[in-house]
Amino acid sequence: MSGIIYLDSISAMPPRPEAIAAMQPFLTESWGNPMAPHAAGDRPKAAVEHARGQVAALVGADPNEVIFTASGSEANNLAIKGIGGAGAGRGRRHLIVSAVEHPSILSSCRALEPHGFTTAVLPVDSTGRIDPARVQSALTGSTALVSIQAASGEIGTLQAIAEIGAITRRAGVPLHVDAVAASGRVPIDVAAMQIDALSCSSNQLGGPPGVGALVVRRGIRVEPLIHGGTQEHSRRAGLENVPGIVGMGLAAELVRSEVRALRSRLDPLTARLRDGLHSKLENWKPTGHPTERLPGHLSLVVQFVEGEALVMALSRDGVAAAAGVTCRERTAWRASPSLLALGLEQSLAQGAVVFGLWRGNTPEEIDRAVVLIAKNVTHLRALSPIYSERT
Amino acid sequence: MSGIIYLDSISAMPPRPEAIAAMQPFLTESWGNPMAPHAAGDRPKAAVEHARGQVAALVGADPNEVIFTASGSEANNLAIKGIGGAGAGRGRRHLIVSAVEHPSILSSCRALEPHGFTTAVLPVDSTGRIDPARVQSALTGSTALVSIQAASGEIGTLQAIAEIGAITRRAGVPLHVDAVAASGRVPIDVAAMQIDALSCSSNQLGGPPGVGALVVRRGIRVEPLIHGGTQEHSRRAGLENVPGIVGMGLAAELVRSEVRALRSRLDPLTARLRDGLHSKLENWKPTGHPTERLPGHLSLVVQFVEGEALVMALSRDGVAAAAGVTCRERTAWRASPSLLALGLEQSLAQGAVVFGLWRGNTPEEIDRAVVLIAKNVTHLRALSPIYSERT
Repeated sequence: MSGIIYLDSISAMPPRPEAIAAMQPFLTESWGNPMAPHAAGDRPKAAVEHARGQVAALVGADPNEVIFTASGSEANNLAIKGIGGAGAGRGRRHLIVSAVEHPSILSSCRALEPHGFTTAVLPVDSTGRIDPARVQSALTGSTALVSIQAASGEIGTLQAIAEIGAITRRAGVPLHVDAVAASGRVPIDVAAMQIDALSCSSNQLGGPPGVGALVVRRGIRVEPLIHGGTQEHSRRAGLENVPGIVGMGLAAELVRSEVRALRSRLDPLTARLRDGLHSKLENWKPTGHPTERLPGHLSLVVQFVEGEALVMALSRDGVAAAAGVTCRERTAWRASPSLLALGLEQSLAQGAVVFGLWRGNTPEEIDRAVVLIAKNVTHLRALSPIYSERT
Repeated sequence: MSGIIYLDSISAMPPRPEAIAAMQPFLTESWGNPMAPHAAGDRPKAAVEHARGQVAALVGADPNEVIFTASGSEANNLAIKGIGGAGAGRGRRHLIVSAVEHPSILSSCRALEPHGFTTAVLPVDSTGRIDPARVQSALTGSTALVSIQAASGEIGTLQAIAEIGAITRRAGVPLHVDAVAASGRVPIDVAAMQIDALSCSSNQLGGPPGVGALVVRRGIRVEPLIHGGTQEHSRRAGLENVPGIVGMGLAAELVRSEVRALRSRLDPLTARLRDGLHSKLENWKPTGHPTERLPGHLSLVVQFVEGEALVMALSRDGVAAAAGVTCRERTAWRASPSLLALGLEQSLAQGAVVFGLWRGNTPEEIDRAVVLIAKNVTHLRALSPIYSERT
């Protein structure tokens, strides 16, 4: 994306050239059906299994526990409907989630409600953290699934997953963790954290779009979302996206070796952005937790400015950022449920902007972005009748 | 796939180099999120919309009627569960399908049965054809959806979709057509055939795997299978597989201009294969309809031979074919429900082999394949105690 200062890695991570290169043989040459009982299926089948191992290794799982999907959203749907929904067979129709989950989690829960399910939506504190004790007290004898994100792509806050995992494991209730924003950015180990199911996305690891995975601990029952053939051990039917899976696998392997060093690379850049804004701009504040947050993530609300307008103005100046969760229509912006859950007023929540730095950003880009953000906020405020009245 | 005589285009179509080339900019450069409200999303968004038009044009639909999925199987699931399942809201819980549908159709119906749905599975004649009058008589006041394939990938038989469409449209019941095997091989027009929803697969058009589409007529309600963001007009959430969608779009455009000429290219090759086998081999017969069938498709049952064993033996000699539907585990082969529906005995049905020719095959390849098929059948029969007893 030449010429753009790209600070929107939460919406889409720039793909790693190695991952894209690894896909090519499976687009041009080894394009057979992995289930074909002849030689054309051999290499694609082996490649899918190799990628399964690479994704499993990233999160400390067994390769057989990886179910490839087409996106993180599909993985989240499969977790809620396929694991949570399967609770109905044992008379369990209660779900526990947090107020800051991704729309694919919250709307999957709503999709189960006509089938007799109820959802407990746990509140968060002003930093976006869920108190693990609240998970404990929300558990009932009919809880089918607890689903808590590892980190919010919108406010950056990391959750105390290991503490929550200890509670759910003790209660014998499966814990699903939406790690779409977190995986590749912070270390995650499903065994150590007592996670029963985990969603991740190829794109967020630096692989191609069109692939994701749900990692499900052995022994946890998953009802398929897509029925048909016996692909993915009959847990997700359909011709495998072999090139995409190969790209995701390699991206997982690459980020695994780098994830511990990522914070030391991105923290100074993120501080530079935050400090630069503090020095050049008034009437804004960061959202989410001050320290327990994703590396490279700076989310904020800017008073007297609409986030969407600021993001569009920045785009004209060559800076890419997000105005909250990108999984919405360009024109249908409303105040985000996650930000309202932090206790922010509607007017402030509408001024939300998210910067997602990535390993390719430079100090020079950050300095330039600070100048352009300050310029555009000043310009937009000059047009705002509310701001004029106030000053 | 150099060195292989590839006669398994039903399992996986060799991708078109033009489609693979068209994907590249969206893997390496224009990888932004199409929903991002900044410049990085502009080109991906425009490319998805362009591809939507290309897919729509292939089947005579409006671009807004195209919902991209990750596979033909997902499209079939979305049709049955999302359109059929939505019938529950109007008290309609009756589905009509045929006995020769793909596993993704039949198992999606079964998935709705615990929710009060019943499925009428229409029989076929010995050529695999559904009598449209049977659709008429199966319709009830509570029929939510009729789903009949355009053609079987397993037995090649084409169905009288336009006749069925006239019946379902008159009855005001939506008709879904699984056109995964048919689209790109025979002309299809959703308006002329009165089809309300149609599934197709990128791979079968010569595009990359990991993409499919459900084309849904305006006004037909679809409940999403994957909830979350507002992608695909809120009918299918998740980050779009932009490169895959672009590849599917170009493949659709290419096959659209060639589909009418395909039969004249493939019919002589298919006849050459059939006639060659007739001259060199005894105790086999073609399955499916003799004339109303997919171009390039020859399906057969070979007596005293297991289809799976023959396909594996052929693979060792460099010929790729299928032993029925490929969407099953390599080791879990059972007699196919479709073949049993034709009235074939179990023992014959186990000898099923499917040859799916494609535009790249040559007469020389066919002649060589005939020799190798005859050789391997002879060899396998020599090992068969049943065949020895009989002769």
